[in-house]
Amino acid sequence: MSGVTTLYQVYGKPGTFEKKAEGIALGLTIGSWTDLPLLEQEQLKKHKGNVVSITEFESVHHPLKHDEIKAEIKIDYPSANFSADLPAILTTVFGKLSLDGEVKLLDLEFSSDLLSNFPGPRFGIESIRNLLGVYNRPLVMSIFKGVIGRDIDYLSEQLRHQALGGVDLVKDDEILFENPLTPFEKRIITAKEVLRQVYEETGHRTLYAVNLSGRTSDLKSKAKKAKDLGADALLFNVHAYGLDVLQELVEDQDIQLPFMAHPAYSGAFTSSSFYGVSTPLLLGKLTRYAGADFSLFPSPYGSVALEKTAALSLGEELTKDSAVKRTFPVPSAGIHPGLVPLLIEDYGIDSIINAGGGVHGHPAGATGGGLAFRQAVSAVLDGIPLAEAAKQYPELNAALELWG
Amino acid sequence: MSGVTTLYQVYGKPGTFEKKAEGIALGLTIGSWTDLPLLEQEQLKKHKGNVVSITEFESVHHPLKHDEIKAEIKIDYPSANFSADLPAILTTVFGKLSLDGEVKLLDLEFSSDLLSNFPGPRFGIESIRNLLGVYNRPLVMSIFKGVIGRDIDYLSEQLRHQALGGVDLVKDDEILFENPLTPFEKRIITAKEVLRQVYEETGHRTLYAVNLSGRTSDLKSKAKKAKDLGADALLFNVHAYGLDVLQELVEDQDIQLPFMAHPAYSGAFTSSSFYGVSTPLLLGKLTRYAGADFSLFPSPYGSVALEKTAALSLGEELTKDSAVKRTFPVPSAGIHPGLVPLLIEDYGIDSIINAGGGVHGHPAGATGGGLAFRQAVSAVLDGIPLAEAAKQYPELNAALELWG
Repeated sequence: MSGVTTLYQVYGKPGTFEKKAEGIALGLTIGSWTDLPLLEQEQLKKHKGNVVSITEFESVHHPLKHDEIKAEIKIDYPSANFSADLPAILTTVFGKLSLDGEVKLLDLEFSSDLLSNFPGPRFGIESIRNLLGVYNRPLVMSIFKGVIGRDIDYLSEQLRHQALGGVDLVKDDEILFENPLTPFEKRIITAKEVLRQVYEETGHRTLYAVNLSGRTSDLKSKAKKAKDLGADALLFNVHAYGLDVLQELVEDQDIQLPFMAHPAYSGAFTSSSFYGVSTPLLLGKLTRYAGADFSLFPSPYGSVALEKTAALSLGEELTKDSAVKRTFPVPSAGIHPGLVPLLIEDYGIDSIINAGGGVHGHPAGATGGGLAFRQAVSAVLDGIPLAEAAKQYPELNAALELWG
Repeated sequence: MSGVTTLYQVYGKPGTFEKKAEGIALGLTIGSWTDLPLLEQEQLKKHKGNVVSITEFESVHHPLKHDEIKAEIKIDYPSANFSADLPAILTTVFGKLSLDGEVKLLDLEFSSDLLSNFPGPRFGIESIRNLLGVYNRPLVMSIFKGVIGRDIDYLSEQLRHQALGGVDLVKDDEILFENPLTPFEKRIITAKEVLRQVYEETGHRTLYAVNLSGRTSDLKSKAKKAKDLGADALLFNVHAYGLDVLQELVEDQDIQLPFMAHPAYSGAFTSSSFYGVSTPLLLGKLTRYAGADFSLFPSPYGSVALEKTAALSLGEELTKDSAVKRTFPVPSAGIHPGLVPLLIEDYGIDSIINAGGGVHGHPAGATGGGLAFRQAVSAVLDGIPLAEAAKQYPELNAALELWG
């Protein structure tokens, strides 16, 4: 079939799901079927939604309505019904249905011809590694902290300290927008110079992801300007704009910069167990299809934590075999060096260890924080327990003493 | 203050909310405060988020965690922190916070200088009434039904039958996208001719809202084309694109068409009681600020029903005094003539009675369905009970017999 196979989670009384599934499959496509004349059935057949499967989970009861159990319903929607863009697909499979009681959109499976309309990451994991010349280990990233209301010198200093710690990437805080103290273009130019100096001094290369923000129709020209100024990468609050906006930025031949998708606002869609969209679908598969080279999301461990199964499945969606390139999983929030073994176990070496407070809060400052992360990564890859490695590395030792 | 005052709903143990509120106000702005030197406090003061109020609802317990109660937290975010666009505002007030446990965004209050950056409806209720020449009664709208896979003659016939019933507006089905049988431009041209004929025959004017769909950056040119072809209004699945996309379409001086915001996909944000965004905020205030002339939403009564308090508050947000024009509330889904008294009681005459099945499913077809709605509206405005009016109007009588 050409189209999209859609997996929903619903709750209801046992035995009621077949009717529900048929209602969805018809309601979101041709409206009715059995009461149509045979000739019309023949004409409309290729537009009809079809129930593929219904799985009842007899032991999984609704937490409040104890006579209801969980079920998963799979429905095929033919691509003849929608244009090949995410707004049309989301409206088809979860438009009015999103308003119709406890239904959660778990997954979308695109037929290969449909998927061919989506770019996926322009760079992907391999090309990002080539940019950095770093292979065979997770990358380390840190985040500007407390930069609202600060001037460009403050940012420069913070960037320099972070880069000197050996992090591979530094990203803007997602809440730093266009402002007179540290305007977009000035951030790009200044960061470039700071990072060039650090490279000359140490031979270590760090990339800076600047926050692309503002009105939707201005984003392309701002991104092109960033490209012209030599920006390394763009941070983008995609879920506050729309997935198709990201996709168009990625597709633009005049931009050609790596995109880092921030999960800001995405919790509004993903957090409920009963409604909205699953995290692996939204921050995983769709963010990858739309073309993000990096996808940030809450790790299963930190202060803002994602449920572990979802967090792992998200990483899987970003990196599993597909017609599009792989996206770097960036588990984030409350990450400190002591979590590095868990993160590498969960996400493998093709992932990014990302920290804010875990870098800046280090007793030896952001430089010490970055070093501690790099040391932790080396230890894990060498099969050395962190506690053991800490004897040799004072920065790692200090981090473990502080955060455990 | 210049900025946005934000109301959140949270759950927690009594007495814990002050710390939580302070954590949010600082975490989403300058990061830290008490440990800053006085000089820096002075510099950063105008960027600091400030807790305005905390209201604990001692009798409202969490349904699953019985030691937790509900609270509402109000925080001011200074506009110095963000650019005056919805993606920046939503990222500031509900970016990472949307991922941080059970927090729901209930309301945003824009300072008047901030609000002046938002267009609101270009037409609004008054100008839409002028277009139709209809005053002093709710408008009646019907929806194309089962049009996927059908050709332009089928649509024409359906449109004619609907218009002959005296409806004021007919809207596309939101799941009808660009397709070879009934392409966008052809729908506009054909509908215009059908509606012109009906006007010549009956003197009744009906407007048609065509579904504006496709890739984000193509929307403006498609909308301009629609304008050139004489389209009446544009239906738009704004929540599958992004509010800022709607705003830019509304602001475009070359488009200048009424926009009808469809709630497709919005349930993914609004349906949970614990997460996401409140319905009155998303489908009410923000949809109005972004510039929709009509906002569709599930009524409190039909098949897909909204909780009544939220549904009423939504209508209030669309029509209450504000610096921007008023947006037509369009309570929808499962509406039949018997519900007209309730809808007028809830939403007053400045609203739209909108039906799909309640028009097409009428025993006398869509024309009879439209007539029944118009008869119900007249009866309510004349203070005549529907059962009484039905003695005089066979179409209304048939509708009441069928749907009650």
